[in-house]
Order: sequence, then structure tokens, then C-alpha cells
Amino acid sequence: MSTSRPRPVLADSVRLTGDGVEILDRRVYPFETRWVHCATSEEVAAAIKQMVTQSSGPLFATTAGMTLAAREARHEPAEAAAAYLRAAGGRLVATRPTNNHIRDAVRAILAATVDGPLAGASGQELADAVEAAAAEHDARYWSRSVALGRNAASLLGDGARVLTHCWADAYLITTVEAAQEAGKRLEFVCTETRPYLQGARLTAATLVEMGYRPTVITDGMVAAALSDRLADVALVAADRVTMDGHVVNKIGTLGVALAAQAFDVPLYALVQAPDPLAPTIEDVVIERRDGDEVLHVLGTRSAAEGAVGYYPAFDATPPALVTAIVTERGVYRPDQVSGHFEENP
Amino acid sequence: MSTSRPRPVLADSVRLTGDGVEILDRRVYPFETRWVHCATSEEVAAAIKQMVTQSSGPLFATTAGMTLAAREARHEPAEAAAAYLRAAGGRLVATRPTNNHIRDAVRAILAATVDGPLAGASGQELADAVEAAAAEHDARYWSRSVALGRNAASLLGDGARVLTHCWADAYLITTVEAAQEAGKRLEFVCTETRPYLQGARLTAATLVEMGYRPTVITDGMVAAALSDRLADVALVAADRVTMDGHVVNKIGTLGVALAAQAFDVPLYALVQAPDPLAPTIEDVVIERRDGDEVLHVLGTRSAAEGAVGYYPAFDATPPALVTAIVTERGVYRPDQVSGHFEENP
Repeated sequence: MSTSRPRPVLADSVRLTGDGVEILDRRVYPFETRWVHCATSEEVAAAIKQMVTQSSGPLFATTAGMTLAAREARHEPAEAAAAYLRAAGGRLVATRPTNNHIRDAVRAILAATVDGPLAGASGQELADAVEAAAAEHDARYWSRSVALGRNAASLLGDGARVLTHCWADAYLITTVEAAQEAGKRLEFVCTETRPYLQGARLTAATLVEMGYRPTVITDGMVAAALSDRLADVALVAADRVTMDGHVVNKIGTLGVALAAQAFDVPLYALVQAPDPLAPTIEDVVIERRDGDEVLHVLGTRSAAEGAVGYYPAFDATPPALVTAIVTERGVYRPDQVSGHFEENP
Repeated sequence: MSTSRPRPVLADSVRLTGDGVEILDRRVYPFETRWVHCATSEEVAAAIKQMVTQSSGPLFATTAGMTLAAREARHEPAEAAAAYLRAAGGRLVATRPTNNHIRDAVRAILAATVDGPLAGASGQELADAVEAAAAEHDARYWSRSVALGRNAASLLGDGARVLTHCWADAYLITTVEAAQEAGKRLEFVCTETRPYLQGARLTAATLVEMGYRPTVITDGMVAAALSDRLADVALVAADRVTMDGHVVNKIGTLGVALAAQAFDVPLYALVQAPDPLAPTIEDVVIERRDGDEVLHVLGTRSAAEGAVGYYPAFDATPPALVTAIVTERGVYRPDQVSGHFEENP
């Protein structure tokens, strides 16, 4: 990317080192810049499960976790090394069920190694190959995000006021960079996105780093903000898009979509590709997290004793409420998003 | 009310004493039970402005504030005492513009005294009369709330799962008491209601006191909760209802209404009466509060530095999104709510 400004901190928040992986703790950023050191693939899985990183973060944590697993199996013979890698991959996939990044990263790395050209290779041979496949997967994710960002930026007019929900990570960064390269001015309204406040913390902090002064609203203000014309487009990522055009994303997206429809604001959902393994919404597991997380804010109890929490981490927005789905290959009507796979890359 | 359980703390949270008024600080309840002592009517106005109390609280604070003003003018001659009372009333009305409780309480007390039978009375004579008028206004507010609660409870089936937003105060307490007297079992799902978390704190705490185990959700979860059939009726108060059926209530109500409509859940709005002084929504001032409040949770910074906050304290839900408006006199279709004034009490 040719921008004079340094890339945002969150664009490089999972770092492989000689003795493990450092993962920026998104639960406390930007109030604290704390890195969680994971020495093993098992520790990486635990970190993902505990939300040390989220959005695109688990993808990079997963590729790093597979690299650590390959290092751990370096002295194993072929069969044991392959079994160890597959088990580590299974452990990583089991951390969070809704987004398909983790699953796809594990599959890609296994397909490039033990399930492909390196079937039967020793642990020693696999170690370097897994690390190379992991790096390639990371690089491909970024290059596809750059393509997606250009497609998304093409939908934003000069001066557009953009409503965001949660933290769209690489997709948001590449979209904003593409808009900046095209000379478009943008403004942002960010939902705070309880319970983890990713919008108030991660999205707002990154937009500040990128030169903006975002407006933060509480999640309950979306309908009033759109009714008041505070934003003229809603832009969200998708953790998963089904082949029939359902958008699965951070809890609250469905409410954003209902408000966008009610007040004639277009809603664009960003995903590199729909998921061929999810023909319909019935094929997606919506993660339920510990309800206790809803009863706290930044570690402090926020709800009365005696109450219980309910925390579906994602919701599903039906295709009729989505204006378009933006992938790395183009812009699709939700009911035609399967066309993504019918075109040449 | 004939219930064996003691009334909830919040049912008696503004207490007139010999030397002032004690107001329960709703900003920290139930985590702290702290009473703010106001020695003068001016201090009462400041407390209302600073949200020490809210919902029905400002009504009781206002009647107590007028009593304090009358005490302060006890040694004034007639004209000065009347002017002092009117000024104190004006100061109280100016604290918060959207809910008409404060305005109506001041008017009622003045109408019963200096603007009515006690025109020309001395400060000494006014003091007791204002205190009596204030007490009568409080008692009338409760008796009307009891009537409203019976009407609201009649709409709830046995076993109803009720979604609440923010804190409906006297209306919620009387509705629940009426349902309990009728032997109806209820369950509750409460939005936490950022930025002040009145739902997670006040509503949840009061429902716990009344014998329930409420489920708390974040404000962004309403659409998913209704889509998942977690509740089968939405019940909100209204800070104001216009004569043409617009429901003005805590920010987020509009989003609740859109979700309720989308998922065929009835939405009932509770108000003692529509406001004859607000024929249309254009006649209602929507209070904008300091955006900084959105950037904090319970006093702790929750948004990235460099972001700005936007905080409309209320939103307006159009009549088409409201199933019925429940008043002390009955249950009305929103477009027929002006009929409230056409019937005998």
C-alpha cells in the first residue's frame, strides 16, 4: 500500500517469533498495548478462545499456531508429525465455530503439506513447509483484502458518512486505504459494539490512526442515527456469508440492517468470498458465549446481581436486508453472491 | 398494594425531610446505595440535570424541589414569594426538555396555589399549601400509575416473556404488581441500555427485588433476541406520547420497535396520558446530552482517544411501529390515543 502514514497497529497484531507468537491483546487495546506470548499451538488456541484476538486476528493466529505445531513436531517421524499437525488444526478449528477463517486456514496449510505434496514427509521436512504455507496464506489473505477494499471503496462517494458496526479489521483498513488513494473524503460513525466494545476501541482507534475523527454511538442509537441522517451508508464485515446470501456477523448487525432498510440507507457487507460449505443459514453454527460477559464492561460488573446474561456472539441478516455483498472479486446482490465462484479471478 | 414482598427500593427514591430532600443516586445504584442530599430547590434542579435521578424520579424530585422553594420563600411577602416559586419552577422545567413530568408537576403545584386559590397569599401561607399540593401530585401520579399498570397487565398472558428497554419505573412496578395480583407468571429480558445502563442496573435490580431472575442483553442484541423468540412482547415506557401517537422514549426504543415489527412481536408503550401540548412530534424537543457520556461506562473511558461521542437521549417511534399505547384510562391504538381525553376517567 502506498500511503505516507504508517499502517495501523491492528494491521500487524499477530507476530511470529523464534520462540512462539506474540498476539496483541484486543480485549484491552488501545487503553493498553499488551502482547500475549503463546509458546505453543495449544496456547494459541486458548488465546483465540479467550478473545485475545478476534475478527481477522484468529486467521493470523491460526497460521502462526500451525507453524508452532509444526515446530513442536519437528523431531517426529512422518506419521506422528502428520497426526500432530491435524490434531493441532482440529484444536484451533474448535475454538470458534462461526467464522470460517480458522477452518479455511487449517485446511489450506494441511492441503499444501500433509494432505498434499508433503504426504509422508518427516516432521523435520514439514516444519519449514508449514511455515511457508502459513506465510503464503497470510499474504493471500491480505492481497484478497486489498482487492475487496478496492471494490468496497468504489461504492463510497466522496464525502460519504459511513456507519460501521464492530471491527471489520483488514477489510476496513483496505477499504479506507483504497478510498484515500482515490482521493475520497470519508466520515465515520462507529457503534461501540458491546459487550467487547470493539467499535469504540478497535475501529475508532484505527480510524484515528488513519487520520479521522470518528463519532462513537451506543448500539441502541443506530436507528435514531440513521433516522437523523447521521450516516448515509452502512458498512459491515461478515464473519460468514452463506451461498444463499445470509450475512452472519457480530451480534447487532441484524438491528443495523433493519434500521438501514427502514431509513433507506444502503447496507454493504464485506467478505472475501461466500462459504461454499454453507449453502444456507442452517449450515452455520452461531456461537453462544458465556452470558457473564454481557454482565460486565471492561472487567467491571455492569448488571445487577441476580440477573443472568445471554450472549449470542453473532446474528444472521437475511439477504432481503442487504444491499450488496462485496467480495474480492466484485459486488453482488445477496441472492446472486454464489456468482462469486462463477467468474475468473 | 397488597403484596407480601416489600416494595422495591426505587419505588421510594426521593424523600422529603425536614431540612431538604434525599435523592437516591441512580447513576450508581444498585452497586452503591448512595443518597444525594439537596438542601435547596436549586440543588434539586442540578441533581436532575446531572441524572442523579431519571425516569419517574424527576417528577418526585420536582414536587420536592417546589416544596423546598416554598420553604425558602416562607418569610417573603406575597408577590416576592409567588415570583420565587415561579422562578424555581422555571429552573426545574429547564433541566430536561423531553419528558413532560417536570413541566406538568410545576404547573399543577402553581395552579393549586399562586396561580389559583392562593393567589396573593403570603410566603408563610404558601409554604404549607405547596407542600400539600406536591404531596397530592405525587399521590395522584402513583394512583394513575396503578391504573395504568392494571391496563398493561391485562395485555400480558400467563407466562409472557417480556422484553424491556431502559427503566420504566413506576409503570413497570405497577404493571408487575398487577400481573402478580392476577396470578400471572412472567419472565423478563432487559436491554442493558447504554450509556447509563438503566436496564442492567435499575430494571434488573428491581425485578430481582420483585422475585424474578431477569435476562440481560446488550442493546445490539434486541433484533436477534426477538428473531430467536426470546421474548414474545416488548414493553416500554414513554417519556412523552404526542397526540398523533408518536412515542418518545429512551434512545434505542426505535430500534426495539423496528425489530418488534420485523419479528411480529407486539410493542406496548406505557404513559399515563398523551400530551395535549404536543399535537405532533415537531412539538417535542429531543434532549441532546454531552457526547462524552457515550465515551465512558460507569466512569471509565470506553472509547479510543480522538473519537467524539453523539448522545441523543431519546428517539421518536412513529405510530405505525407501535401496537398499542397503554394509559391510565385504557389501551389505545397509537393513531387513536387522543381518545384518552374523550372518555370519562
